[in-house]
Amino acid sequence: MNMEFEMEHNKLRIGIVGGTGYSGAELLRILIAHPGVQLDVVTSRGEAGQLIADFFPAFRGLLDLSFSDPAQVDLGGCDLVFFATPNGTAMQQVPALLDQGIKVIDLAADFRLRDAGLWSQWYAMEHACPELLAEAVYGLTEVNREAIRKARLVANPGCYPTAVSLGFLPLLEAGVVNSQGLIADVISGTSGAGRKLTASLLHAEVSESISAYSASGHRHQPEIVSFLETVSGRSIGLTFVPHMAPMIRGIHATLYAPLTEPDADIQAIFEQRFDSEPFVDVMPPGSHPRTQSVRGANTCRIPWHRPGNGETLVVLVAEDNLVKGAAGQAVQNMNLMLGFDEAAGLGGIGF
Amino acid sequence: MNMEFEMEHNKLRIGIVGGTGYSGAELLRILIAHPGVQLDVVTSRGEAGQLIADFFPAFRGLLDLSFSDPAQVDLGGCDLVFFATPNGTAMQQVPALLDQGIKVIDLAADFRLRDAGLWSQWYAMEHACPELLAEAVYGLTEVNREAIRKARLVANPGCYPTAVSLGFLPLLEAGVVNSQGLIADVISGTSGAGRKLTASLLHAEVSESISAYSASGHRHQPEIVSFLETVSGRSIGLTFVPHMAPMIRGIHATLYAPLTEPDADIQAIFEQRFDSEPFVDVMPPGSHPRTQSVRGANTCRIPWHRPGNGETLVVLVAEDNLVKGAAGQAVQNMNLMLGFDEAAGLGGIGF
Amino acid sequence: MNMEFEMEHNKLRIGIVGGTGYSGAELLRILIAHPGVQLDVVTSRGEAGQLIADFFPAFRGLLDLSFSDPAQVDLGGCDLVFFATPNGTAMQQVPALLDQGIKVIDLAADFRLRDAGLWSQWYAMEHACPELLAEAVYGLTEVNREAIRKARLVANPGCYPTAVSLGFLPLLEAGVVNSQGLIADVISGTSGAGRKLTASLLHAEVSESISAYSASGHRHQPEIVSFLETVSGRSIGLTFVPHMAPMIRGIHATLYAPLTEPDADIQAIFEQRFDSEPFVDVMPPGSHPRTQSVRGANTCRIPWHRPGNGETLVVLVAEDNLVKGAAGQAVQNMNLMLGFDEAAGLGGIGF
Amino acid sequence: MNMEFEMEHNKLRIGIVGGTGYSGAELLRILIAHPGVQLDVVTSRGEAGQLIADFFPAFRGLLDLSFSDPAQVDLGGCDLVFFATPNGTAMQQVPALLDQGIKVIDLAADFRLRDAGLWSQWYAMEHACPELLAEAVYGLTEVNREAIRKARLVANPGCYPTAVSLGFLPLLEAGVVNSQGLIADVISGTSGAGRKLTASLLHAEVSESISAYSASGHRHQPEIVSFLETVSGRSIGLTFVPHMAPMIRGIHATLYAPLTEPDADIQAIFEQRFDSEPFVDVMPPGSHPRTQSVRGANTCRIPWHRPGNGETLVVLVAEDNLVKGAAGQAVQNMNLMLGFDEAAGLGGIGF
Repeated sequence: MNMEFEMEHNKLRIGIVGGTGYSGAELLRILIAHPGVQLDVVTSRGEAGQLIADFFPAFRGLLDLSFSDPAQVDLGGCDLVFFATPNGTAMQQVPALLDQGIKVIDLAADFRLRDAGLWSQWYAMEHACPELLAEAVYGLTEVNREAIRKARLVANPGCYPTAVSLGFLPLLEAGVVNSQGLIADVISGTSGAGRKLTASLLHAEVSESISAYSASGHRHQPEIVSFLETVSGRSIGLTFVPHMAPMIRGIHATLYAPLTEPDADIQAIFEQRFDSEPFVDVMPPGSHPRTQSVRGANTCRIPWHRPGNGETLVVLVAEDNLVKGAAGQAVQNMNLMLGFDEAAGLGGIGF
Repeated sequence: MNMEFEMEHNKLRIGIVGGTGYSGAELLRILIAHPGVQLDVVTSRGEAGQLIADFFPAFRGLLDLSFSDPAQVDLGGCDLVFFATPNGTAMQQVPALLDQGIKVIDLAADFRLRDAGLWSQWYAMEHACPELLAEAVYGLTEVNREAIRKARLVANPGCYPTAVSLGFLPLLEAGVVNSQGLIADVISGTSGAGRKLTASLLHAEVSESISAYSASGHRHQPEIVSFLETVSGRSIGLTFVPHMAPMIRGIHATLYAPLTEPDADIQAIFEQRFDSEPFVDVMPPGSHPRTQSVRGANTCRIPWHRPGNGETLVVLVAEDNLVKGAAGQAVQNMNLMLGFDEAAGLGGIGF
Repeated sequence: MNMEFEMEHNKLRIGIVGGTGYSGAELLRILIAHPGVQLDVVTSRGEAGQLIADFFPAFRGLLDLSFSDPAQVDLGGCDLVFFATPNGTAMQQVPALLDQGIKVIDLAADFRLRDAGLWSQWYAMEHACPELLAEAVYGLTEVNREAIRKARLVANPGCYPTAVSLGFLPLLEAGVVNSQGLIADVISGTSGAGRKLTASLLHAEVSESISAYSASGHRHQPEIVSFLETVSGRSIGLTFVPHMAPMIRGIHATLYAPLTEPDADIQAIFEQRFDSEPFVDVMPPGSHPRTQSVRGANTCRIPWHRPGNGETLVVLVAEDNLVKGAAGQAVQNMNLMLGFDEAAGLGGIGF
Repeated sequence: MNMEFEMEHNKLRIGIVGGTGYSGAELLRILIAHPGVQLDVVTSRGEAGQLIADFFPAFRGLLDLSFSDPAQVDLGGCDLVFFATPNGTAMQQVPALLDQGIKVIDLAADFRLRDAGLWSQWYAMEHACPELLAEAVYGLTEVNREAIRKARLVANPGCYPTAVSLGFLPLLEAGVVNSQGLIADVISGTSGAGRKLTASLLHAEVSESISAYSASGHRHQPEIVSFLETVSGRSIGLTFVPHMAPMIRGIHATLYAPLTEPDADIQAIFEQRFDSEPFVDVMPPGSHPRTQSVRGANTCRIPWHRPGNGETLVVLVAEDNLVKGAAGQAVQNMNLMLGFDEAAGLGGIGF
């Protein structure tokens, strides 16, 4: 292949801390083709010095950059830095970056909760910079668009919270369901668990099998509750059970809510909330989205059902956990923070 | 291979109407190795005359029998006949078989509801022998064991109803949950849809995708409600949403119920109900069964969770939809009807 | 979602005959995002009148066009028409289109062989316009680039022939292998078989299984042999065995050739042949490409091995059967025929 | 579940060293249901002390035994010990066991080659007991049945060598192919790589992808060559390329051999060789076995093709890599060594 790598000096410079996981790889895939930025630094503890395109052959001929050692790297030349690291890493480095005037988007959980005590309880460590929790903007673009434009620090939502929050939000804002009786039954592909070396993620363990996990309590439950309470001003009662399915990408959420306003026009509520949104597709009522239809796309598809015309409303949400659920939404937020068109680089069509 | 096919005249004779679908194939797999029966007749409209072992190479060397034409076959020599046919077929032939003194197990839905009007509403045809609906015994073995022993006609439960009913039953019998607020969110492998030639079941459509289907109303919802109301004597309100996952076999049910007796000993309730059952495995509280662990086995595994020690009880159920959810339970029922050990031929271990 | 569909009158107009199969869908996915063309007509016998985005929800919000009835449609306004139809369809309509000055790319097999008798033998019908066989240019871009630029009619290569031909070609051109002793052992994902309603393509049949098919003779064998004989001027002896694997997309070819020039610099031969090619990636010797790395990309990756430093050369080739093996290469050819940059619209990165 | 665990003192006692890998688990699955043996000791370094049924929930209610620490365990009470350990472990312990009169079957590679130098070259360590290499019987049952009956030490063949050797053997014995020009192109499910924590075996890496590996040289190549040379008395030239496919179980071998006796009756050669074999199924010529048809079964299915009636013979072989390719064949050998019926416990039917 004929590679042409010219430094384009009018492009903004991007750093990625933690470039070998699935979110990091998806960031690379999107940013390589982004018209307004160039990758400046990509770090990896384990692969420092290796050509990124050797580690990810999908990028052969497209990216002439090696992984940097995070202990030695200088991110000072970056306009914006993404953290695609395990929980607890970003909070060690973010204050210094912000001090240098560098914008930050954290794809991990370090800045998703406003309450440092609650955070410590679920993540089993002290928070390194609790003073930033109030400043960090929760990066669900459809809700916090204007704040994100001005933000120095964005906490990119978890993959589950993105799907669950977008599905419940219009109903809570409209006040047509009982916010105390919400149930979110969600199924994820295996990339959602990250590139971790645990036996439970081996192909021979995952394939031909379904199971729930963390059914007694998962870290994304308080994240969803905190966010929905903040946005809706209501007290939220949510039961959240995640499942793992034998597919690489995709999240399918089936949301149950007790309908308190039986005459509400549910379709109108969803359409009014999302019709100007470029990445939320309100489907016709009674539809069933397949996660295949959003694979590789930054789109979230949402239809609803009311079985037997009864009191339980069922909302279905499909997204790609690595795109709208992680790297895609992160780039959507980056576009706002850096003044690009919100959809720049996010034209991927599901297949 | 060295085949030895001796007619063993002391074995009871079995017929299968509809032997080319997945339930039919699984019946064949179990019955070929069953110590007390021999396959006498297996019908197929499309494959009549073909050697079964040519159609299903897995049975090469193990079964020297061809498919019979159902229009011409004489089932009169059978001791028991299974119907593994589409809905609406068994009801045309069952009265005549019963008149000949032949026992019948229907794996389809023809005899699962007691109300012919309700049946017609969901199955879109008139019932051909509504007079048999009251006699037919619903074949959830763990509930109707003694009635099954004496039955002439058993309606084998659907794959979803088996998992959902076993999971909710102990809680309803003990009266510790609000029976009006039940939710069953269930995920099935693709064999659950049968061997139907529809584009939505092609590998390239199903693979790498999750979707709900029939979220506005599925035929198994009234089946579950009718059965649970009969058994528990309570009025049941159930929201049931099935999903299809990219795996061949397996059902995973996540059941949600509002706990009305917060001090109830849930583990004791499950253990007391199922501890003498050979095919129900009550797991430790807080466990997460993988469907892999029951693949090929007649076992149903059930643990429960109570997230945040709150008011919503979560019960997880894993089964193989073709075994405990169809052919295995049918053979379990056959064993009772024919006087064999209930577990005969059902020693498959999950893998 | 916020749709904006403006007719852009300076774009060239494209027709697709047969838009519901996997190749047709992939053409749609690529052409929707192509900067220089607009979709004018997409036909489907079965889905005429239906909105394309209802049939393929992945295109919701991106394409405001319905399927046309092929019996009634007027393709006269198109600049170029793709046929993504079953074999034997394109040859009925191509002469009339060419007469109207419309360019044609056939993704089926109608124009891939130059010998009408050989074609009839493998495709079991008479050829409808054998006089066009000599004119049609075989669309392996890397070989026939200049002829494709000037062509009215391009026969897009089969998915297997693309991989096999690209892998053997440099060795045959360099004369370093015995062209009589070639073996191509190739594995394809299930989308390669098309969107056909046959039991053998159901998820429950394909999943967790591998099998060869057509091992005694497959239509792509004469296609490969004819092409390689034409290009290399040598007589070719090729054994070709295709296999189906439980994945949606991807072809992996393992090619075996008896080395006749043990001192040849194999890496140099491949690099010299392909280094200026935008869509062929010659990997380091001893590498093993995964088909994941080209999923969704128009790239073909090729490394080679010489086990035990012996006389058998092993060449590995990975491609996405729907992209470089079908729709991607078709668009690559369209770009040449219509004067666009060869890579326009083909920036997809594997994932 | 109702568990009954009675020690049955008339059963022979079996030890398994290394019970947590896939071969170990499959041995457990088969031996739990075996009529003539009982599991006495199962070791695991990492899981010592844990109940086996907690580690493998599929065995809940079926096995009341915990993993033993291999450093402390006494295998002296066993009649036969299986090693399902990494290469290099069995050879440390086998001499002492043999001295105690305990029979041994090694599922790893320690005793598969007769030449200690060749072994060291491929396994990168010194052999600990080269004096046993001549005594160890290569456990391809169909070839060494009588020697296995009398053996103290059996080297169970690798999964690939079982399929490849059974496919080539009749042709080599009959002398109808050129033994210098053999090619074996083989595809395996991921369980063949074992339960190793490497990123390349994660579900998200393996799924939707095919790749070759070790194409420049794999350890099973010398194993196959050594064995076939010993059995056939011919010099063997073999190119062997293994591939990994996204399925859990199954091996599909496509074997290519230059036919030197074009008039040979190939079908008769295969049938005469294998017709009395209980676990080899010679299929009709021109067939294509699917690995699904042998999943969970100890059967190996073999048909052949002669494309274009030419000089290259193609033999297809399907087996379950964990059964006939590992644990099933090991139990088949155990049955011979302990005087049971060869097929005892091996009645699993593919599904």
